[in-house]
Formats: sequence, structure tokens, C-alpha cells
Amino acid sequence: MAARAHAADDALGPRFAAVRALSLAIAAPLSDADATIQPMDDASPAKWHLAHTSWFFETFVLRDHLPGYVAHDPRWAFLFNSYYEAEGPRHARPRRGMLSRPSLDEVRAYRAHVDEALQDALPRLGAEARALVELGLHHEQQHQELMLMDLQATFFANPLLPAMWERAGHPSPAAIQPPPVRVERSRDTQPSEAEAKRSRQRLTWSLDFARDERNGGEDLRWAAGPTGIVEIGHPGPGFAFDCEGPRHAVLLHPHALADGLVTNADWRAFIADDGYARADLWLADGWAWVQREAVAAPLYWLERDGAWHRFALDGLHPLDPAEPVVHVSYYEADAFARLAGARLPTEAEWEAAAQGADPAAGTQLDTAGSVRPRGGSDLFGDVWQWTMSAFLPHPGFRPAAGAVGEYNGKFMSGQFVLKGASCATPRGHSRVSYRNFFYPHQRWQFAGLRLARDL
Amino acid sequence: MAARAHAADDALGPRFAAVRALSLAIAAPLSDADATIQPMDDASPAKWHLAHTSWFFETFVLRDHLPGYVAHDPRWAFLFNSYYEAEGPRHARPRRGMLSRPSLDEVRAYRAHVDEALQDALPRLGAEARALVELGLHHEQQHQELMLMDLQATFFANPLLPAMWERAGHPSPAAIQPPPVRVERSRDTQPSEAEAKRSRQRLTWSLDFARDERNGGEDLRWAAGPTGIVEIGHPGPGFAFDCEGPRHAVLLHPHALADGLVTNADWRAFIADDGYARADLWLADGWAWVQREAVAAPLYWLERDGAWHRFALDGLHPLDPAEPVVHVSYYEADAFARLAGARLPTEAEWEAAAQGADPAAGTQLDTAGSVRPRGGSDLFGDVWQWTMSAFLPHPGFRPAAGAVGEYNGKFMSGQFVLKGASCATPRGHSRVSYRNFFYPHQRWQFAGLRLARDL
Amino acid sequence: MAARAHAADDALGPRFAAVRALSLAIAAPLSDADATIQPMDDASPAKWHLAHTSWFFETFVLRDHLPGYVAHDPRWAFLFNSYYEAEGPRHARPRRGMLSRPSLDEVRAYRAHVDEALQDALPRLGAEARALVELGLHHEQQHQELMLMDLQATFFANPLLPAMWERAGHPSPAAIQPPPVRVERSRDTQPSEAEAKRSRQRLTWSLDFARDERNGGEDLRWAAGPTGIVEIGHPGPGFAFDCEGPRHAVLLHPHALADGLVTNADWRAFIADDGYARADLWLADGWAWVQREAVAAPLYWLERDGAWHRFALDGLHPLDPAEPVVHVSYYEADAFARLAGARLPTEAEWEAAAQGADPAAGTQLDTAGSVRPRGGSDLFGDVWQWTMSAFLPHPGFRPAAGAVGEYNGKFMSGQFVLKGASCATPRGHSRVSYRNFFYPHQRWQFAGLRLARDL
Amino acid sequence: MAARAHAADDALGPRFAAVRALSLAIAAPLSDADATIQPMDDASPAKWHLAHTSWFFETFVLRDHLPGYVAHDPRWAFLFNSYYEAEGPRHARPRRGMLSRPSLDEVRAYRAHVDEALQDALPRLGAEARALVELGLHHEQQHQELMLMDLQATFFANPLLPAMWERAGHPSPAAIQPPPVRVERSRDTQPSEAEAKRSRQRLTWSLDFARDERNGGEDLRWAAGPTGIVEIGHPGPGFAFDCEGPRHAVLLHPHALADGLVTNADWRAFIADDGYARADLWLADGWAWVQREAVAAPLYWLERDGAWHRFALDGLHPLDPAEPVVHVSYYEADAFARLAGARLPTEAEWEAAAQGADPAAGTQLDTAGSVRPRGGSDLFGDVWQWTMSAFLPHPGFRPAAGAVGEYNGKFMSGQFVLKGASCATPRGHSRVSYRNFFYPHQRWQFAGLRLARDL
Repeated sequence: MAARAHAADDALGPRFAAVRALSLAIAAPLSDADATIQPMDDASPAKWHLAHTSWFFETFVLRDHLPGYVAHDPRWAFLFNSYYEAEGPRHARPRRGMLSRPSLDEVRAYRAHVDEALQDALPRLGAEARALVELGLHHEQQHQELMLMDLQATFFANPLLPAMWERAGHPSPAAIQPPPVRVERSRDTQPSEAEAKRSRQRLTWSLDFARDERNGGEDLRWAAGPTGIVEIGHPGPGFAFDCEGPRHAVLLHPHALADGLVTNADWRAFIADDGYARADLWLADGWAWVQREAVAAPLYWLERDGAWHRFALDGLHPLDPAEPVVHVSYYEADAFARLAGARLPTEAEWEAAAQGADPAAGTQLDTAGSVRPRGGSDLFGDVWQWTMSAFLPHPGFRPAAGAVGEYNGKFMSGQFVLKGASCATPRGHSRVSYRNFFYPHQRWQFAGLRLARDL
Repeated sequence: MAARAHAADDALGPRFAAVRALSLAIAAPLSDADATIQPMDDASPAKWHLAHTSWFFETFVLRDHLPGYVAHDPRWAFLFNSYYEAEGPRHARPRRGMLSRPSLDEVRAYRAHVDEALQDALPRLGAEARALVELGLHHEQQHQELMLMDLQATFFANPLLPAMWERAGHPSPAAIQPPPVRVERSRDTQPSEAEAKRSRQRLTWSLDFARDERNGGEDLRWAAGPTGIVEIGHPGPGFAFDCEGPRHAVLLHPHALADGLVTNADWRAFIADDGYARADLWLADGWAWVQREAVAAPLYWLERDGAWHRFALDGLHPLDPAEPVVHVSYYEADAFARLAGARLPTEAEWEAAAQGADPAAGTQLDTAGSVRPRGGSDLFGDVWQWTMSAFLPHPGFRPAAGAVGEYNGKFMSGQFVLKGASCATPRGHSRVSYRNFFYPHQRWQFAGLRLARDL
Repeated sequence: MAARAHAADDALGPRFAAVRALSLAIAAPLSDADATIQPMDDASPAKWHLAHTSWFFETFVLRDHLPGYVAHDPRWAFLFNSYYEAEGPRHARPRRGMLSRPSLDEVRAYRAHVDEALQDALPRLGAEARALVELGLHHEQQHQELMLMDLQATFFANPLLPAMWERAGHPSPAAIQPPPVRVERSRDTQPSEAEAKRSRQRLTWSLDFARDERNGGEDLRWAAGPTGIVEIGHPGPGFAFDCEGPRHAVLLHPHALADGLVTNADWRAFIADDGYARADLWLADGWAWVQREAVAAPLYWLERDGAWHRFALDGLHPLDPAEPVVHVSYYEADAFARLAGARLPTEAEWEAAAQGADPAAGTQLDTAGSVRPRGGSDLFGDVWQWTMSAFLPHPGFRPAAGAVGEYNGKFMSGQFVLKGASCATPRGHSRVSYRNFFYPHQRWQFAGLRLARDL
Repeated sequence: MAARAHAADDALGPRFAAVRALSLAIAAPLSDADATIQPMDDASPAKWHLAHTSWFFETFVLRDHLPGYVAHDPRWAFLFNSYYEAEGPRHARPRRGMLSRPSLDEVRAYRAHVDEALQDALPRLGAEARALVELGLHHEQQHQELMLMDLQATFFANPLLPAMWERAGHPSPAAIQPPPVRVERSRDTQPSEAEAKRSRQRLTWSLDFARDERNGGEDLRWAAGPTGIVEIGHPGPGFAFDCEGPRHAVLLHPHALADGLVTNADWRAFIADDGYARADLWLADGWAWVQREAVAAPLYWLERDGAWHRFALDGLHPLDPAEPVVHVSYYEADAFARLAGARLPTEAEWEAAAQGADPAAGTQLDTAGSVRPRGGSDLFGDVWQWTMSAFLPHPGFRPAAGAVGEYNGKFMSGQFVLKGASCATPRGHSRVSYRNFFYPHQRWQFAGLRLARDL
């Protein structure tokens, strides 16, 4: 987040326009009502995202660096401040869904006002303000992914399961049946015997591998990672959030990473192996969560007519077994790895493996539209990858100065790091050193996993 | 609710049209988003009210009495059934605010579809079905008042405090200030000394009266009610809800009712006398409620610039001391009466006093628009009047047959009866025998009080 | 509670001694730990009951009427005040189980101290103080029943299900098996076909009776009650709680009361008829309670080896089908009555029927020891009988003056009246006008039911 | 926990006897009631600790390794299993306070039974069983500290604030005053101006040091730690819990540790500097915790007569400013460090500093009796020291086989590591590699802190 570097002068304006435009494009299919709903405390209405990202520019750039700037509406700071204690009191987070006013159109007008003022001011802004614009753009990209996450939760909260976009290259969703009162796994949704056997072989093999040091499987390949001292963290130059630095050395022990992501087929095998019913696979907090919430499948999995379906922003479709599994919690990822005789990678292992990789590769967000992992991505794209590393400061970490110093540092307890990028991450947003973080029970983000093991 | 009687054949169609039209008129100022929000579990979105009342006609009239009727959308029964267990599973009440789809326009189209089908079928419907239409109209009128209650809660949940309608004959609300983080009563909102003295005299006088059997006051007059055996309950003919019957004799003891409603000025005196801080005035459950919820004033009272204001559907305005107090809970009404040395009337006392009164008199709802008690009403109008009677069955009560038998009878525990009608009750809806009921902590309904005492 | 009358001068001292001794006798089998546990917020530790009843005498009699009296321990008022707001702050009710100190022996010493002081002072006390002694004795008798209720809950909270007393005239409880993780009703606990048929006949008959005005059954007989104006409420002279008065006229409609209590056999038939699974039988609040708490049988019913057992202070024993059912909530009693085509009596109906009955008859508490309904009681004894009347003030009710005015009046919302007396009520404590009251979901009190119906 | 090593054959029996005796000695002052109370879900009754540690030996040693062993009472496994899923269902943790039976004496008899059986069997046990005995002794030592923690919480839950032991070398606690209704900090408990200034200088100096790389202070000295690759984790031989291994290399960055623990005087300065009111000092989760719980001082601090006191097992005494602060949460420790311009050490930094130190040094538990930090301890003793490291597996960690594999590994999410030993840790129990762990909000353990900083 520090102003270590920023986009070339001539590029910032167009990039600002492009990023801001994508937010609007994502919101384009939404009604005012769609954009107003808050499906759970963790999520925010789309309208709120659109306004909050504008408030960020208005407050930290226009108010603080443009003498004479008059707020679009001084009452809105109370509504659209997210969590910046330094910016004063604010609307309670769980009540963000109460804001039918301002309307979506009024929020769009707010965006236009801020955009115009900022584009107008841009040529005159100094380095510090330009760095805040840069930060604001990365902030907005984060909110684009959050908006997609939250919209998926929003439409899932509606028993009609509306699709926000048609599924590209697929027939329309089957006529939606009257909604189920509760989701229960029927016998028929077991994988076929053959499929179960294949998955079990693959996982067993993994288990055998980990225990017996043999490597005879053919499905899951392992790539040994670097051992010894390697450097991780943002190397500069260029933008990075404060928590990505400083660059520092870490010591790696012999290990290997799986060459692909865990898939829906793998997850069906986990379910078939009673993965959600075996206490020995779970962290204690995870087991309590499974029981308290009656968790029996990844988020957004539903059964219809005896077969697993998955709900996404393009509606409810039969589960694609080849897709990387997505919307699993840390607890689930950890339990899966334990069943497989493996573990999750550490952040440093993952980051060391990604040195030199292209963070803009793989399935990421290019334009507004249906968002799904498609498989085939490597370290970046498709799904964020849970690591077993807690989100804690890198050695020597110092938060950025001012209110924006609340951006990352104050969340450094209780959360785990995810690396890479997902199908909902705006392409160009991620970095090798990027540190995404969530609590271990959260799973409405586009999170999956890659296995690792000791060598 | 029983089919004891119904409107004359030729009148039902036009009345159906008129009642249905008022619902739409109430919703006219709403955006799709306004109509989608659910501000608390007890309240429902305006859109939901509009759809649920249509579902009621569609289900109990069209589906059950019109052979071949095809549901507008078979999935919607799940969404818009309120609480009829006999009608199968339904969307969870606290999640009614998740329904951005169907849109407000789609719900309007649903209404039009039902209206057309019902008007078309009406000439052919038998007595039972026509009685259900009649029931449905009274049901819809109840939801008109509920919709106004819930919309007031909805807009109050927005820190911007939007006004749904302009206040008739008043200047526009003052420019709204940035919202307060919390409401605290400042010293300056105490009533003036003179005003406090007047109110205290009046109340003290009441207290003296009740204790000393003197009657020298000049503000509050008491009217002795009938003593001995009187009949209450719906006498027929004409429509009434099942719980209003059967007509039956009750025995009244010597008592008097105050000749007017308790006002905002009275309530300020209650506050000034530390009414919310004296445990001895409160029922045990009420005292726990006051402390748990930090209750210090009626709902919708806010302080601005050292003076009490009241929020209503026409926005935030300075408190009018002459208005009947509204939005107080049973606990508050009971505590006020105790401070005044009086009590609340029983349902039978109230109903006996109202024999022969015109239930269509007073400030009630005639057209869509700003809703406020104006004072000057007697037994009907302005505010519902809390009684000290629990909502329990009249002797010989039998619920109506079928699913509509769940209409009233199953709520007969823990609630208190309110009598009369409020400024938000559609004129023509109430009756002397009408039994409104709420839990003692609830106060988002238009509820106030009239004092009573033993003679 | 008013000092309308009190025991003859010479009798008060011995009666004081006898009542106080019974409390100690009840607590005799308890260890210090047994007497310290609080199994739920509604219940209190036995030690607390023993101390609180002493605090009552110490505060309202000795402190207020014995000049120079020095409190046994001034810190204990904070611990042992129950709910008297006028007596100042107090230990939080849900934390009463935290008081390992003072020990049970220290509490016994406190009792001895108070007893000695009071007996010593008694000859010199005036009428007001003597009335408070009288009140304190009735208060203590109430706490004797509460202590038995709370102890049953205490021992039931222990998976070992300890028996506090041996069951008189019965073999020892079977060796207790390792406790079940959860209670589920097995198929085998259905009543035998013959038994089910009998019960169903009886209930169906009742149902038929109620609907068809025939009376051909042979098991359940109905007795018509008085119609017209009758007087209820405490007639004086003699002690009564304030809420039992004043004596007043009520108007009764034609009705009949069943001639016996509902039994365990009846209740098994209710279960067999899916009584806990049919929403149409339940009040809305009751149905929510059944589902939220997964209620499927009366409190203290457990299944062992495919048969219903009932836990009581004498341990776990096979259910006796002839015993009156006990530990059912208002919701359950109401649902049962609805299935039977009957209803619960009103308080006035019950009290009118009991005019002239001996409140000291039936199975009530004579000495410390095993407490069970035995059947054969009529209006008094065995179980408290739920009425369908809310606990509200009698016409003209005024609470007693002073802190003891908090005794009853402040609980007049949300609760229902129970009449009679139970097997745990100290004989001599109850009256025809006695008004017991509990919330409709509560059932750890010794509550059962008698049916009523309209004529 | 693995059977890597165990005490010499001849030593195990006497050590077993000594450890088991200490548990009884700690419980010696307790009444049955004292030993039964559970003051909060996180804590267990003393009786439960005494029984659970015996169940551990009975189950994992006697049952599994002594053919023919008959359980003391087969029902007790249900009661005294803590969290071992592999051992089947168990009594719900929050209901451990319901066990007045078995009595404390019965639990002592259970202990005697197990002790005798185990001492008798010991000569015949194989290496695996002996390793489990060894594990059981360390397990019991942990529960000794837990028992002291839980007893302090137990007596603090009693408004009388009983002292379990007299304070050695101190006058008796002042006569205890009637308990406060709520704890509020009065003006008078501010530190004296001089004291505040001293503490502020010291802390400011620390802040300056950290920022300006000057070292001119005289109170707080810093010791630079090793840089580069060092080894941590249990080196063997000898007992260690599974989570302490394997020994592995870590890379340390330049840093320094403070030479002493943070004291009560320091903490008063933190309070005086509005430490609990400044959001910028706190992690987001910590700030939410402070506000939700109204935290304003360390646990067990109370004000009496305008001065801070601290409650401990020896009662309530005026706060000793020189004592190391104890009973602070991770959130508090982290906020304090932030105010001081410092940070907490990492686990590796702490462990590297402790290489060669004597884990048996400092103020630790030698005999049953009053437990207080006394100051003067270095790395071990007085208080557990929060680190900024999450409790996660060391590289290559594998849980022990069998049910005891649930001992540590399943708690590896959401918790932080504490190092060293406290005044309540049985001397001989701790190791350099010892990993204690708690959630960041927990503070009933004897936890304090030492500052660290980057160089």
C-alpha cells in the first residue's frame, strides 16, 4: 500500500476509468432491490460496494488532497465508511441492507461525480495523492471480487435461485423446481462405484505416497519445491499492499506441492468416504463448526433429483466433476488434506513455487459475466488456495501511515492466508506476494485448495 | 371469519377493487428497493405484503373454488405463505428481506393477474367462496396497516430518515443532519417547568382522584362505565373475524374510563418523572425489557438540537405535545398508568363503553398518504388502545374450519388485546368487537392508551 | 398478603418452628455440593432457597421491626435478595450456582440465628410484623415446593440420575445404565395396541362428546359447573396473598369439568397420535417451542430398553400409566385438550367448582421424602392444574404496600394461572383462591391438567 | 507425547506418587461445593480435574494395557472424558458443573483406586504403557495449573471473593465490603502523576527506541537475540508433547527482547494513556472484544476505595505495581506492545533466547498454596509469555497415534503460542520447547508479556 511506486503518469487516468467501469459493468444486471440486499453480516450489498469504493477516493484523495473539494453528500460518509475507526462513527455493518436510499441510480450518480472530480484533479495531484489513487484502484478491484462473492450469496438466499448471467456456452438452467425445505443428501447422489473407486485410488495413492514414500500414482503428480533459504514478500518496484512486505528470507524444508487443484470429483469422494462425519479428520474448531452448522458439502452444493448441483452466478447446474472445488472453508480444506495423507502448503512454500510465475495467467476476471472456475489454471486463477499459514505480519512489517494503515494490519489474528487468484479476481490485481486472508470457517469467497506434503 | 354474512352481491366486486387499489396506492411512492427491505423479524417487506395478500385470494378462493385455475407461479406459494402450517413449508420469516426477485413490478403483475381472475370468477362463486373473498378483503386491510407500520420501521432503519410522504400542511422537514450514533436524552429536552408542572398536576390529580375519591381536576375527565351484566363480542350480522365471537355476557364492576387519550405532553411528564428509571412502576418483564433494550422514550422519538422529535412516514418533525402518544408498548402503557394511579381498561369495559359508537369515526386511513394521530378521536381512530386483557378465546369460541382457522386462534397466548382503530387502520375495517393483539414488548404498531380506574 | 388476619397468637411460634423445620428436613439428604448447583436460570440452588427464606424474615421482620437487630452477615443481603428492586442491587439470578460459600452448614447456622431471633422477638411483635411473619411462612412454603422442583431438575442434570430418596414401597431403581447421549423414542415405546385403543376410545369419546353433545363414554365423566354469577377470590378471614383478592363476582357460562386428571396413559396416547408432530394442535408459540426444543414427551420422561420411564426425586422408574401426568407445559396441556376436543378450565370455573372443597385434601406434601403424584386426588393434590386464564389482577386488586408488594403484582404479564395444589405443595399452604402462575413454556413445576368443555 | 523416552524405571513410581499427591494437596482446602462449581464454559470444576486425570490413566494405561482391569465405575467414562472423540460420547462441557455426584470424597476414592492399580501394575508395564504413564503425569501437571486457573475464576464468581489460601507473609485481607454492583474505574485510581510520568517515560523511551534506533533509557533494557539459522523444537531425549517436535531449523531476523516482563505499573500507565479506549492500538477482533465485553483492565482487577486491587487465590489485595502483569489476553498484550512502539516476540525468537536456560528456574509451583507472580523471573516462571506466533504445526509434525493423538494437533487453528512457565506451572513441567496455547481473547490463564522489537 505504501507509495513505493505508481503507474506511469499517463496511464493512471485511463486505468482509473477502466477499473471504475468494470465495477459498473458487474452491477449492470442488477435491479435496485438486488443491489440493496445484504444476505449475511459478512457480505455487503452491491450498492454499498459501489458507494464505498467511491467514498474511499472521495475521502482519502479528494477531501485530503484537493483543497476546496465539497463532499457529494456529507451524510454519506456515515453510511459508506467500512471500518476505518480514524474516520469516525459509521453505520453498523449488519445493517447495511437497510439502505434502500440512496438508490442504485443515486449511487451511480455519486460514482460519476467522484470520477469526474478525480479525473479532473488527477493531473494536479502530487505523488502521495497519486499513490492513494493507485491504492484506491487496488481497493476497488478487491471490492469487485467481494461484490461477486456477495451477489452469489444474495441470489442463493432467494429460494428461486435466480441466475445473474446466463451460463456461457451452456443451455439455460433447467426450469427451477419449487425450492427444497432442507437439503439432505440422498443415496442417489453417491458417486458411481467406478468413480468412487477412481477417486479413492487417487486419494489412497496420495495417502500411500505420504506414508510409504512410494510414488506410483498416475493422477496426482508432485513437484518438489525449493529447500533452504528463499526470499518472499513484495520485491518492488510497483504497487503492493503494506502487508506484502517487507521482502525477507525464509527457510524452507523439503516438501512437494501437488501439480493441480483438488476437484469436485475428489470432493465427492471425500463425502463418500464420510469425510463430514469423521471427527478424526477435523480440527476441533472445525468439527464444532460442522456439527453446529450441519455442514455436509461445500457451500452452494444442492441436490436435485438425486444428483449434486452447484449454484453460481449463472444459476444452478449439475456439478462438473472436473472443475476445481470452490467455496470450501479452511476447516474443510484441512480435513480433506488429512484424509488424503497430505497437508496444505505454507504461504512460503507456495510463494517460493510461484517465483517467476505470471500472476495474470489462468482463469481470472476479464469482463463482467458468469464466474466459474474452469480448471487448467496453475498457481493463479480458478480459486484462491488455502495455505496453512496464519495471516501474521512479515518480519519488519509496518502498517501504512494514516487511516489507510487500518487496511490490513488490524486483521492479523485468527485468519489464514490464501494465495494466488480466483476466477473472480480482476486480472492484473494479484501478485506472487499477494496475501488474501479469511477466517477458517468462511467459505463464501472463491476458495479451493492444492495439496502439499513433506519430503 | 365465519361465513355468517357477506356484502351484498352487487357491492363485493367494487369493494374488492377499492381495497386492492388502496394497497397499491400505499406502495406507490416506493422504489423496488424500498419494497424489498425487512427491517426486523416482526416486520415484512412491502412487496411481501402485496404478494401475500394476493396469494391469500389465489389460494383460498381461486385454487380452492375455481376449478382449473392455474397458479400464477407455483413457486411463489413457498415465498408468500405467511404462517399457514396447513399450506405446507414456506420461506423463513426472518428471510423475507432476501427477495429482490420477484421485483415490485412482477408483484404488481401478480396482483393484476389475481384481480382479473377473481373479478372474472366473482359472479360464479358460491357463498363459501364469497365469504372467503370477504375475509380476504379484511385480511388485506389488516396488511395495509401492517405495511404502513413496517414501512415506518424500514425508513427509520435508514440513518438518512427518508420521508415517504410530505407532511400535509406543514413545511418540509428540516434538512436532515448527519445521523446520531446513539440517541441520548440531553438535559435540554426536559419539558419546560411550566409544562412539567401542568402535566404533573394533571397526573397527580389523577392519582389523587384514584386514591382519594375526589374529582377536582379540570383536564382529565372520567366517564363511569356500565356496571353489571353486559354483552360483548360480535353481535352479527355482517363480517367479523372468528375470534370476535361468540357474543356473550360479561360482568362489569364499577369503573370509569378517561375521556381522552394520553398525549405526548403527558409522556414527556412521565419521562421527566424518571418513569423509565423507576423499577417500582414496571412489570418485572417490562423492567427487564427496559434495561435490556435501554428504552428511554417511545419508539421513533429522537432528540435533535435538544428537543424531542418524532419520526413518522412524513419524516422527522418536532414532537407535537397535543398529539396522542403512539408507539408505546404494553409495558410502557402499564407503567404510565401505574404512575398515574390508574390502570388500563379491560377489553370488556372498553367494548361496553363503545356500544353504539361509530367504528368508522375519528382519524383513520382514507387514502394513501402521511399517517399521524391528530387527536380529537374518541374510541376509534388515532391510536389502538391497549387493554389489560390477555388475548384469549371468548367463551364458546371455535376457530373457523380449514387453513383460515389458523388466522387468530393459534395466537392466544402471551399477547394483549388492543381496541379501537388507529390513524393507519383503513376506515371501515374496525368494529366495536374488533380484537387487535400484540405482545407486551411490541410497539411498532400504532398503539397508545386511555386510562381507566376502579370506582 | 395483606394483614387481614393472622394465626392465633399462641399458634404462630410453633407453626413457625414447624415450617422452618420442614425446609431443613427436605434438605437433609443433600451434600453441600448438591445444595449449591443451579441447573438452569429458572431454578435456584437448595442452599439459596434455605438462605433466601431466612433473609426474608431477617429483612422484612427483624430489620424492619426489631430495633437494634444486627444482620447475621450484612454482605448476604446482596446474595439472597431474590427480586425485590426496593431492596437494592443483588446477585444476578443466573449466577446463583456460583455460591459454594457460604457453605450449607453456614446457611444452616444462618437459619438457626434467624429462627432464634425471631422466636425471641415474636411475643413483642405488633400486628404488622406478625402479618409479615405469616407472609414469610407462606413464602417459605412456596420455596419448599420450589426447592423440590429445583432439586429434581438438579439431579436430572446429572447423567447418573441420582435418587434423592428411595421410592417408598418400591424396589430400588434398577442399576442405572450408562447415560444415553440423546433421547429418542424407539418404536418399542409405543403403547400396546390394546392400551392405545383404550386411550384413543376414551379421547375420541371425549372428542365426540364435545362435538356431538352425546355423553356415552364410561371412563371420563363430566360434571357440570355452576352457571351465572358466582363469587371467587379470597373471602377472608385468614391469610391470603394479595393477588387472591379482592373477592369479586364473575359470570360463568355453561360448562363442565372432567372428573379426573389426565394420566400418563392418556399422554402416551397423545404421543402415539403424533401429538407432538401435528402443528394444527398447537398454539403458534407452542409449536415454535416444540420445534426449537425438540420436545417429544413430558419433562423427565426417558426411554430405557424400549419403554418410557420417568425420573423423579426417587430416581428413574418405569412410567406408571395410572399416575396423573405431570411436568407438562401450558402449550402441551392446551394441545392435548385440543386433540381431545376439549379445552382447559378457566380459573373462575375451577374456583367455582372448588367452593367448599377442602384445600388440604389429596396427595400433598406432609413430610420430607419422595414426591410423586399418586392419583385419586380431586381438585387439590397430585398436580397443579393449568387453567386457560392469564395471570392478571382481579378487579380492584391493589398490591401490598412496601417491598413485599413486589411479591405477585409485578408478574402479571405473559403467565397463566394454575389452581389446586401438587404432591409437592406443603399441606395447608393452598387455598381455593390460590393463584399459582407460570409461563406457558415452563414445566419443571408439578403441573398437569384437567379437561373442561362448553355445555 | 511419543514414547521417545521415559523416566528411569525406578523413578517412575515415586514420581507418579508425587505428582498425584500434589493434585490432592491443591484441592485440600476445597469443600465439596467449591470443587463442584464451573464458573464458565472454558473452566472445569476442581472435582472434574481430579477425576478426569484419573480417567486418563485408567483408560489409556489400565484399560488398554492391563488385561482384566475392571473400571472403577463404567458410567464415569461418560462424565470424565474431556474431548477425545475416539473415546465416544461424553458429558457436555458446559454442564460439568452439574456433577454434585460423585462427591469430592468419591472422586478421591476413585483416585486412590486408580493409584493403587497403577502402582501395582507399574513393574509389569511395557515401554508403550510406561510412556503413557509418563504422558499422563505431564497431563496431570497441566491440569494442576488448569485447576488453579479455574479455582481463581470460581472464587471470583462469588461476590464474597473468598480466599482459598492466606497470603504468605501478608496480613489477612481487609474485611470484605459488600460487593460492588459493577466495576467502574473512578478518577482516584489513576496512577499518581509521578508514577504515570515514570511509566510514560519508560514506554515513550521504548517507543523512541523502536523508532529512532536510540537506546538511552535506563529502565527497560533490550538484549539482541541470535540471527540466522537456529534450531528449535524438542531436541530429545526425554519427554515432550508431540507438538513440540520435530526439532527443526528456523531463520531469525535481527531482533531484541526486553530484559523483563511488563509490570502492573506499566499496565496502569497503559490505562492512564487511554489504552482501552483507543481503537488504533487494537487488532480489529480485539477492539470488538473490548467493546462487547466492556474490558477496561486486566482480569481480576477491581477497584475498592479508589485504588486498584487484584483478586487472586489468596484473596483481594491492593495491586502491587512491581509484579509482572498477569491475566491479560493476547489482544491486550498486542495493544500494549503497539502503544510501546514494540511488538511481541515470535515463538522462535523466544525459544532461541531460551536455549540453555533452565526451565525449572523462576517462580513456579512447588507446593500447594497461594499462587502469585513475584517478579524477578526471567524466561521461565511468574507468567506465561504471549508470542505473536500462531499455534500451528512445526514442519514435519505428526500427531501421536491413537486417541492421545487428539492431545494437541486438533487445536491448531485460531490460537497463539505462549512460552515459558507461570507461577502456577508445576516446577519440572515446562521445557524450552514447550508450547502453551490459548485463544487471543482468553485471559484466565496466568499470561503476561515480554516486549520485543526489530533491530
